[in-house]
Amino acid sequence: MVQTALLQLKTLPTPQENLAKAKEKIAEAAKGGAELIVLPEMFACPYENDCFTRFAMTQDDAFLQELAKTAKTHGIYLVAGTVPEREGERIYNTAFVFDPKGNRVAKHRKMHLFDINIKGGQYFMESAVFSAGKDVTVFDTPWGKFGLAVCYDIRFPELSRLMALEGAWAVILPAAFNMTTGPAHWELSLRARALDNQCYFLGCAPARDTNASYVAWGHSTVTDPWGRVVASLTEEEGILYAALEQKLVLDIREQLPLLQHRREDLYCLTKRNDTQNV
Amino acid sequence: MVQTALLQLKTLPTPQENLAKAKEKIAEAAKGGAELIVLPEMFACPYENDCFTRFAMTQDDAFLQELAKTAKTHGIYLVAGTVPEREGERIYNTAFVFDPKGNRVAKHRKMHLFDINIKGGQYFMESAVFSAGKDVTVFDTPWGKFGLAVCYDIRFPELSRLMALEGAWAVILPAAFNMTTGPAHWELSLRARALDNQCYFLGCAPARDTNASYVAWGHSTVTDPWGRVVASLTEEEGILYAALEQKLVLDIREQLPLLQHRREDLYCLTKRNDTQNV
Repeated sequence: MVQTALLQLKTLPTPQENLAKAKEKIAEAAKGGAELIVLPEMFACPYENDCFTRFAMTQDDAFLQELAKTAKTHGIYLVAGTVPEREGERIYNTAFVFDPKGNRVAKHRKMHLFDINIKGGQYFMESAVFSAGKDVTVFDTPWGKFGLAVCYDIRFPELSRLMALEGAWAVILPAAFNMTTGPAHWELSLRARALDNQCYFLGCAPARDTNASYVAWGHSTVTDPWGRVVASLTEEEGILYAALEQKLVLDIREQLPLLQHRREDLYCLTKRNDTQNV
Repeated sequence: MVQTALLQLKTLPTPQENLAKAKEKIAEAAKGGAELIVLPEMFACPYENDCFTRFAMTQDDAFLQELAKTAKTHGIYLVAGTVPEREGERIYNTAFVFDPKGNRVAKHRKMHLFDINIKGGQYFMESAVFSAGKDVTVFDTPWGKFGLAVCYDIRFPELSRLMALEGAWAVILPAAFNMTTGPAHWELSLRARALDNQCYFLGCAPARDTNASYVAWGHSTVTDPWGRVVASLTEEEGILYAALEQKLVLDIREQLPLLQHRREDLYCLTKRNDTQNV
């Protein structure tokens, strides 16, 4: 069993303010018993294209080093997802994972960029600033393999399936659904992906700020391998604790063996790319 | 726009009784304006392995010819799904489609067989009797391409995705979820597959018969490309009418272009088999 905590934080204007707040809440969750702690998508700065450019940081930036140190201080796994990551000319929407020794053990660059234009609803063009990641991300922990994806990535059953096939029994998803897609699709997507792949999904969202230009739905939610909601928050700031049991995953996969029943003789889902950037 | 009707019927002991009832209800739905009418999974006989063997029929059986004639009489598309279909030594769980001229225009043999053993819940081993189909099934209508799958097939996102990629904007799913998986997963699966692939899903189930050895959940349901429930029934016998609009599919696919945003450069989902058995 692993005790997890999802930190649903309201995003402040600058990385320094958000770092201070994250450190405070990580300490609180660690004190509350969490062994793996998750931050929301773009917890480092407001979800605006010009902020992504202004605040983009390399993977060795002091901001991330400070988070690595915080993981070490509390002896916890920290999924710090996400920050605008700069590499050369490009900027990515990236989640970093630090282990209890403060080592970076994984990173996931959002693979599917969020470009939406709903009549009378949400408009956002993430691809105007971000480049897209290229890797399916699964990482080892003392509790087994975990998958890592970011927000819009959940829309694509192919990616979740590939993580499950690579051995993930829980998938961590920093995300920021909005006031159009949130009520319509957030819980549905987290339940369905968990059910299809018979694993846990941990969706960690920012708290809602109605003054922000991009208003997040909130509602951080953990779903289980039977497609149930284990726990969820409202739109307010808060910490969502959830215990994950691998035994439940194994039991359900034995009783209703979906992954074995895939017709691999008839269809084929594979990665084209096999590099892993850590 | 196409007006559809899903016939949620209680299954009677013999094919002849079920045929008579189906013909009566098809006439009623056609009178009610339906242009495409769907029957539930295994509407021909009780959902029991020994019935599948006893009542198995070839695709030219008089039972199916009578249904073809009924489609012609009313000038409607009929998705007669499913019957136990015998070909040589093998038996399949097969849905047949007849056009308004009474021609057989498609058939789908259930591709994923339902073997489940939930502690304290449902047990069934479909593979003890049935052979599994090998083909992804999409067929043409005056309203565009429709997909066709059977019950447990919906559990596998790969198949639904392949139908959507082959052009289906609506998927017809004769099905018979049970009292364990029904409340847990039926609506969730129909909503999620519709959302992922931005198309309609038409799940047509038998009415519940608590005296049957396999008790069906009922709740025939139509979902739309935004993942909403358009209409649904309870567990009782009834006709579920639903109008499908391709324009809604096209609008949603334009505003949130999920199918275009698939990272085909990074992952690859393909069929291994390309034969189509009609």
